[in-house]
Amino acid sequence: MNNRAQQPGYALRMTLARIGGLDAPASEAARRRQQSLTKPPGALGRLEELSIQLAGVTGSLRPPLRPCRVLVCAGDHGVTAEGVSAYPSEVTTQMVLNFLAGGAAVNVLARLFGADVTVVDVGVKNELPDHPQLIKAKIRPGANNFYREPAMTRHEALASIEVGIAVAESAIQEGARLLVTGDMGIGNTTASAAIAAVLTELPVSEVTGLGTGIGRDGWRHKIEVIERALEYQMPDIHDPVDILSKVGGLEIGAIAGIILAAAANRTPVIVDGVISTAGAALAVGLCPAVRAFLIPSHQSQEPGHCALLEQMDLRPLMTLDMRLGEGTGALLALPLLDAALATLNEMATFDEAGVSGPVE
Amino acid sequence: MNNRAQQPGYALRMTLARIGGLDAPASEAARRRQQSLTKPPGALGRLEELSIQLAGVTGSLRPPLRPCRVLVCAGDHGVTAEGVSAYPSEVTTQMVLNFLAGGAAVNVLARLFGADVTVVDVGVKNELPDHPQLIKAKIRPGANNFYREPAMTRHEALASIEVGIAVAESAIQEGARLLVTGDMGIGNTTASAAIAAVLTELPVSEVTGLGTGIGRDGWRHKIEVIERALEYQMPDIHDPVDILSKVGGLEIGAIAGIILAAAANRTPVIVDGVISTAGAALAVGLCPAVRAFLIPSHQSQEPGHCALLEQMDLRPLMTLDMRLGEGTGALLALPLLDAALATLNEMATFDEAGVSGPVE
Repeated sequence: MNNRAQQPGYALRMTLARIGGLDAPASEAARRRQQSLTKPPGALGRLEELSIQLAGVTGSLRPPLRPCRVLVCAGDHGVTAEGVSAYPSEVTTQMVLNFLAGGAAVNVLARLFGADVTVVDVGVKNELPDHPQLIKAKIRPGANNFYREPAMTRHEALASIEVGIAVAESAIQEGARLLVTGDMGIGNTTASAAIAAVLTELPVSEVTGLGTGIGRDGWRHKIEVIERALEYQMPDIHDPVDILSKVGGLEIGAIAGIILAAAANRTPVIVDGVISTAGAALAVGLCPAVRAFLIPSHQSQEPGHCALLEQMDLRPLMTLDMRLGEGTGALLALPLLDAALATLNEMATFDEAGVSGPVE
Repeated sequence: MNNRAQQPGYALRMTLARIGGLDAPASEAARRRQQSLTKPPGALGRLEELSIQLAGVTGSLRPPLRPCRVLVCAGDHGVTAEGVSAYPSEVTTQMVLNFLAGGAAVNVLARLFGADVTVVDVGVKNELPDHPQLIKAKIRPGANNFYREPAMTRHEALASIEVGIAVAESAIQEGARLLVTGDMGIGNTTASAAIAAVLTELPVSEVTGLGTGIGRDGWRHKIEVIERALEYQMPDIHDPVDILSKVGGLEIGAIAGIILAAAANRTPVIVDGVISTAGAALAVGLCPAVRAFLIPSHQSQEPGHCALLEQMDLRPLMTLDMRLGEGTGALLALPLLDAALATLNEMATFDEAGVSGPVE
């Protein structure tokens, strides 16, 4: 790399410059084929839409969806000092070790659906052991407590996005044909709610949820913490990097970077719950064309998730009352993507099967 | 079989007598295990509920879900003579041939998710060829036009339910550990809407949809046909067999029978869209204990589907804007059942992983 390539923001700018639109002829070919298959037009609903989107993203009617890599971005949050989470901060590290040991929900679902899991340490407080499934890219040992000061510098925010770009690029170079975003970070529903409040301009109370399970009083306190932070720090709605640096998280920046790199490489990416969607919304803020590439998965129980999806005019595929993160909701959408492509490519057409069309 | 066993209604009575409640200790064991896994309690949402229900149905925390058999029940409907469907009646036969050739959406999804497909001819108008995946159990070549006369006799209605019982019993004897209901029958959203109107006591206009895709005028006509049929035939809300015989369909009776036999055998059964749910509602009418065994899958675009699910207090797992039938919506739920059991059984507990619990 030359000097320019090492400057913060360079990799981001290069990635943004590579992002184009969907492949319209491929989408149109998928749409036409859907009309010829032995079913009433539109009867496969969202599966048909998905097949058309996947064709537009990849330029192919038969894009392989494996190898599929889940990139679980992990980071800590100083704001946990304000008592906004039901779990202690150490759980971030403990759960990363659980991911590496294969015992978490994301591991189970990845094994079930034929994906692999890589953990990206972009800002975990503790030092982590070497492990083949761990990418060590710590920018700092956790974000600052954004109730008292910005979560990170602008430079660090850019660096977190560029970690995401780098890990996605590596995954794709290693053969991944589908990416799944995931997160781990005690306190990160607080950061995500803050990002959602800025981007949607909704009251903080309407985008803040119970996270891993704080009670009613904890919820009110969480809202106050976010409200005061936004009041003091005044993140700029038009500057995603500013929002990320003031009230975000290192793993949220990395997720934004993964999504940007996926779009730049025309590799489909399934977006998980509220934390991943906060990252996706920042990515869309940096490059509106990214929106067409996003594959939302489930609607979690976090109200900020719903608000962000609505603002981007994205409809989740499932509502399963989940609120776990890690990439679990996104992995559950993977069989639907498989189903969308299998029906598109393997069903008989009306002509092939000798089935009559509608009554004239 | 002795004479009594050949009497109509005998197999149904014997099946009803075998249906018990869920296995409460197994459900409780699953619930306890969910609390010990490395995730906030309840964070896997509907997956946790599913795992607890599957334990209750089967009495096991690790019930195998394969072999999984889709039973696509096919029958014709004389009411198509009234112009209630977008497709000609011959399509029922043509689609059955498509199922047997492996080219329909249900075949593609069954292959993808590790299920097999058996078609049950319980009332297709035309004669069908012999085929290893076809069970010939035709009671009559299509239901009557219920706009003008009862769809079938009470005897035939009982026989259709008993066909369902027999095919489900055979499937289970052959090793099936999970059943999926499916339907094929041009005109059967009209019969299902009529059943929904009787059972929910809602206006016909609130439970009638566009089926395979009739226009606005066709929709109004479909409503009038159903309204007049219900007015003339006055099905008895308290007698599911009466409803089935007057405005139902042979395949809907068979689906009711499959669901009853599944519950009697403590074999899980995934219920597809509006037609399958009409069958399920009749089964619940015959035996309210069946409700706890039902696994609803998706919310189709048919309003009668939603009304029937609400009346039974069942929440679908997904809303994918589908309206195809065949068992396709139910098959898409299969990976969620797999995921529910995999997470229940393969995730590490807090103790095993050394992860801290919530802050006290």
